[in-house]
Amino acid sequence: MNYKLIISYDGSNFYGWQRLNRKRTVQGELEKILKKTTGQKIEVIGAGRTDAKAHGVGQVANFSADIGIPINKMKHVLNQNLPSDIAITSIDQVPEKFHARYSALGKRYCYKIYHSKKKDVFLSKYYYQIDYALNYDGIELAAKEFVGTKDFRSFAVKTKDKQNTVRQIHAIELKINEPFIEISISGNGFLYKMVRTIVGNLLAVGRGQLSVGRIEEIFEAKDRRKAKATAPAHGLYLEEVFY
Amino acid sequence: MNYKLIISYDGSNFYGWQRLNRKRTVQGELEKILKKTTGQKIEVIGAGRTDAKAHGVGQVANFSADIGIPINKMKHVLNQNLPSDIAITSIDQVPEKFHARYSALGKRYCYKIYHSKKKDVFLSKYYYQIDYALNYDGIELAAKEFVGTKDFRSFAVKTKDKQNTVRQIHAIELKINEPFIEISISGNGFLYKMVRTIVGNLLAVGRGQLSVGRIEEIFEAKDRRKAKATAPAHGLYLEEVFY
Repeated sequence: MNYKLIISYDGSNFYGWQRLNRKRTVQGELEKILKKTTGQKIEVIGAGRTDAKAHGVGQVANFSADIGIPINKMKHVLNQNLPSDIAITSIDQVPEKFHARYSALGKRYCYKIYHSKKKDVFLSKYYYQIDYALNYDGIELAAKEFVGTKDFRSFAVKTKDKQNTVRQIHAIELKINEPFIEISISGNGFLYKMVRTIVGNLLAVGRGQLSVGRIEEIFEAKDRRKAKATAPAHGLYLEEVFY
Repeated sequence: MNYKLIISYDGSNFYGWQRLNRKRTVQGELEKILKKTTGQKIEVIGAGRTDAKAHGVGQVANFSADIGIPINKMKHVLNQNLPSDIAITSIDQVPEKFHARYSALGKRYCYKIYHSKKKDVFLSKYYYQIDYALNYDGIELAAKEFVGTKDFRSFAVKTKDKQNTVRQIHAIELKINEPFIEISISGNGFLYKMVRTIVGNLLAVGRGQLSVGRIEEIFEAKDRRKAKATAPAHGLYLEEVFY
């Protein structure tokens, strides 16, 4: 039996999605609870890794196992046993060939910003706080530069020389509801830290550190050092995986 | 110089307000940062203790010191140096006789409930989740039983035999905005775990485990064992201290 899970997690107290020795990760916790509740060692395959401190709203995973619990009870049993910062939103039985990572056609991320000078203890783990003035028209224009099929080598971290760094961004949407700003980015795939680097560069345009005209040059340089800073992980949410 | 601070904190990662050896507390962090920024050992006096995991929105504290930083810069310097889960909302210079605890005339707490069967990872540290049906009219009626000047011995924890356990509750307000419920409680003073025990008993009425008519008997018994359970700390917010 192959099961597809939709998972949400508050990433604040995780070293990201991927299992790591002696570190608390989402995959690690899920596998621990699956072992506890089924008695079996089950590998959970995630649609993609998320960074330490980044959050999941619609992360997808699958695992293959024959477990004794009926599917309608399994979600409840897992949620009862999982810690309070991981929740299973749905479990469905899927065809054997479904693979959370290889079957994925794309993903949508949301980046949340708290645009204020005021310190807010309840937002600090869930929004990236910035306190400088932003030119929203500039950000909207800059966002268009990132949409399409492009080589994102300059906007990703730790890419390898022979790696295919071409990805297609379907859309970038800016929702402004001061003091909150959300940047939604969907595409067919994302390189390491690519969403956070796009956001960092959009904000650099918004504050006047980078002109829209220079973005094309940065793409052409294929060099991470030409682009501006990567935005921090705690504002990032994996919202949805498309199949 | 005597300074009055209004402080907010996300209590999730604190062992409460009060300084404790080797434990992370709000008072402990504040005193550490005051020492770091002023070079002086300064004692911070809080209006009241809050429990581990309970939150502060309008906690008040004062300290007496002669520090070199102008008052308008001090808030900024402290907020920059304090961890992201403590924020100073305001600092004012007050008369020498102002004492955050002894000068307080009363306090207002808010207790936040997430009334849903659905697990939500982003609410779990900030709301007490319950999933049973509630009779709101019953809770409203029960709330009236707690308002007034009464001996709250049955609704507090670790009271001492000779302790004066009479307190005046000014108002209890219920705000329902499903799936969220807020219970606001103001009074001239509160015994240990009194707010959480009142909330626990209101919820017991709401779910039909306790009849409104029995509340008077519980007051009269002056025995904690007669009352229902104390609600957990993570739903509790110290909202305001009155002077």
